[in-house]
Amino acid sequence: MTTISPTRRAAEKRTDTLEAFFRPRSIAIIGASRTPGKIGHEIVRNLKLSGFRDEIFPVNPKAKSVLGYKSYEKIGSIGRPVDLAVIVVPAERVEQVLQECGETDVKAVIIITSGFGEVGKTDLEKRLVEVSRSYGMRLVGPNTFGIFCAISRMNCTFGPNYILSGKTAFITQSGALGLALMSWTTEEKYGVSAIVSIGNKADVDDADLIEYFEGDESTKSILIYMEGLKDGRKFYNSSKIVAAKKPIVVIKSGRSKRGAMAVSSHTGSIAGQDRIFDVAFNEAGVLRADTMTQAFDWIQSINENPLPNGPNLVIVTNGGGIGVLATDKCEELHMDLMELPDDLKEKLRGVVPSFGSIRNPIDLTANADDELYRKVLQVLFERDDVNAIIALFCQTANIDATLVAESIIKSVGTGEKKKPITIAFVGGQMAKVAYERMLDKRFAAYPTAERSVDGMYALISRYKRSQMR
Amino acid sequence: MTTISPTRRAAEKRTDTLEAFFRPRSIAIIGASRTPGKIGHEIVRNLKLSGFRDEIFPVNPKAKSVLGYKSYEKIGSIGRPVDLAVIVVPAERVEQVLQECGETDVKAVIIITSGFGEVGKTDLEKRLVEVSRSYGMRLVGPNTFGIFCAISRMNCTFGPNYILSGKTAFITQSGALGLALMSWTTEEKYGVSAIVSIGNKADVDDADLIEYFEGDESTKSILIYMEGLKDGRKFYNSSKIVAAKKPIVVIKSGRSKRGAMAVSSHTGSIAGQDRIFDVAFNEAGVLRADTMTQAFDWIQSINENPLPNGPNLVIVTNGGGIGVLATDKCEELHMDLMELPDDLKEKLRGVVPSFGSIRNPIDLTANADDELYRKVLQVLFERDDVNAIIALFCQTANIDATLVAESIIKSVGTGEKKKPITIAFVGGQMAKVAYERMLDKRFAAYPTAERSVDGMYALISRYKRSQMR
Repeated sequence: MTTISPTRRAAEKRTDTLEAFFRPRSIAIIGASRTPGKIGHEIVRNLKLSGFRDEIFPVNPKAKSVLGYKSYEKIGSIGRPVDLAVIVVPAERVEQVLQECGETDVKAVIIITSGFGEVGKTDLEKRLVEVSRSYGMRLVGPNTFGIFCAISRMNCTFGPNYILSGKTAFITQSGALGLALMSWTTEEKYGVSAIVSIGNKADVDDADLIEYFEGDESTKSILIYMEGLKDGRKFYNSSKIVAAKKPIVVIKSGRSKRGAMAVSSHTGSIAGQDRIFDVAFNEAGVLRADTMTQAFDWIQSINENPLPNGPNLVIVTNGGGIGVLATDKCEELHMDLMELPDDLKEKLRGVVPSFGSIRNPIDLTANADDELYRKVLQVLFERDDVNAIIALFCQTANIDATLVAESIIKSVGTGEKKKPITIAFVGGQMAKVAYERMLDKRFAAYPTAERSVDGMYALISRYKRSQMR
Repeated sequence: MTTISPTRRAAEKRTDTLEAFFRPRSIAIIGASRTPGKIGHEIVRNLKLSGFRDEIFPVNPKAKSVLGYKSYEKIGSIGRPVDLAVIVVPAERVEQVLQECGETDVKAVIIITSGFGEVGKTDLEKRLVEVSRSYGMRLVGPNTFGIFCAISRMNCTFGPNYILSGKTAFITQSGALGLALMSWTTEEKYGVSAIVSIGNKADVDDADLIEYFEGDESTKSILIYMEGLKDGRKFYNSSKIVAAKKPIVVIKSGRSKRGAMAVSSHTGSIAGQDRIFDVAFNEAGVLRADTMTQAFDWIQSINENPLPNGPNLVIVTNGGGIGVLATDKCEELHMDLMELPDDLKEKLRGVVPSFGSIRNPIDLTANADDELYRKVLQVLFERDDVNAIIALFCQTANIDATLVAESIIKSVGTGEKKKPITIAFVGGQMAKVAYERMLDKRFAAYPTAERSVDGMYALISRYKRSQMR
């Protein structure tokens, strides 16, 4: 136990200590349990299963050990520095335990326990913040399911035990939805660098977290499920700075009047007038998604692609129909298709069969095989005036979709891409195998043309914004 | 061979003969081939594999048999009545073959061969129609991939050989997209009663087909992928009558200026001014979907549910977050959530735990198990003033999603439903297993809250329209 006084700790730069939430060298779980199914058990179990390499200290006065870890009577009896304390004890005991954490020089605290601001007990919640601040501790929660951090192999949640690692930091204000999405990310192959169940945001809020993730090398993009904000100005200021460097996608619910009412009954926070959020997000450069699907589609495209160097977008397809659907969606999203210059048309004419179309969308027709896709993509990737590509493939009876997928992977390469490309494989099982193969190889691939266009929209939109600066 | 003269045939009521496209007692494939991969081979193969029970006559002067069926030199040498002829010969031979079909008293012809109107050869295409009409034959195509009909086990296409049977007739103007969607329907468990690749619509068009499907008992809903119409007025008139009885969902592409251009280069048909389509569809009671996903989501909800008896919609959820997302989406789609009357609240209070919410959305909180869902759904199903239900479930760590699915299936029953219900299971593998189980049991189930709301929208929208009549 170190002997730094509470006052000195509190004077340290506060955001520095967010590090302790994601890369702690030691974690105490206060309220750890030997009983499977109990939250205090599941967290220790997830920490163990996720392969957390540093120290784990269960605190439970009645147990000698929990899941093979020596158990302590209270945090003060551990006798070694604790970076992160996770509190799972009943609500009435939380303040006392928090006090003990402060006295034991803990840096960061996650309060899992609920029964504070979200049920109207705001005074109680304020006390927790006061206690934390008096010791210079940062606090996530109360009323959260915890934090996951991929790089430190730390699944400090009572959610699913396997989570796919990736490039997106996911901040969620909803517990249940957050838990569900933890599983979803794995199932749908969206990897995350971190997940934070932000709970009641008594201390650490969205703004603090995006500032932290701005500096986190393992995070390429930030996704937020937000119901309300306590300090809108603070978020606006932070997000404006962060979004210029790392993409921020927000699902802000409570858009509707009744939705806002539901938010207030659910988290006790105020959803705010939706129009104001719209304007603020837009000015800050935050991408606001309408649906979960859209948010994840954007994130995927952002994670696997560079920004385009210009606005020139080209669509390649083997089916007129999906070409038209994609074109419609482009126009709806104010994305102009490039007028192909004559010398590019000339080059394409040497490759595309005569019954195809070398207008944009370039229609290779239903006989297009992997070799033709390879040739056309090569022409497009070599052209400096083509800035972004959408490749569409309709499953046909005689062409093997997986070969086309392999061909695209080979022509583009699996390293850093020179220009952004989104892909759709439309069809049945073969199409699914093909697009999942592309996901594995870090391409932004989708099951419908519209979604591949929407994925590209996130990039074009960020490119346009970068031009405005 | 019968001896009815061409004139007498032509005088018969023409729409009657559409029956021959879907329930022929005999099919001739003119241009049948012994070579796997060739269209003339694949069609015979698909007919065989799909289990078509009536007669199949390959026509190929060079073969003795094709896939075990005796082969004929020409259609005239079959010597038995042919209801449906499928023409796969090269474009320059099509007219001659069509003539022979007429002389042999064929009722219906599918011209698979392309190279007519879609490449500017409109005169040639007109000749085909003239020849057909002079013999009283109906013509689908040219430039199509064929027709599938579930009830007659007739896969008369060169698409995938397995197609899931169901309740929707699917008419597509795009070949490639249609072929891809044939596979998609199976993969995504959307069954079809029929698929028609409508091609250049030289004779049989969308209007003819929806009139046929109106009278087809195996078809509950109609889905059209449409790029353009030759006779807008005809479609408007037909669809207005049909849509009052059977739901019609249209994906009309070529919405945008450039999309319309792409349509014209693709099929030679004119996309028309999009605003006019919007108004006409709306007046006719045709549901226009923005994306493929939306179209299929609507169709699923329509197929598995009755229309509501009133506008009163209730949402049940185990997660505040998805409840809010669903509420937002409802308001966006102008679907009002019911204000729960006091006596209903009273009933719910006896069932829902005190920390849940009995406002609408009814929030059962994260501990809600199969038993609680059963009880709440029972209360809602018994109430005559509750007309439609959306049930949402977020995968949690301690509740088994599949048990909740079974519980919903049991409380609602697998027969005709008393009122419509759409369901979302949000999460990872467990949620997926749960919602696929519900699909198998003929429920409209989705992987996100927003999509379950959108599914319900199709029903509420048709209910509202029925009130306007």
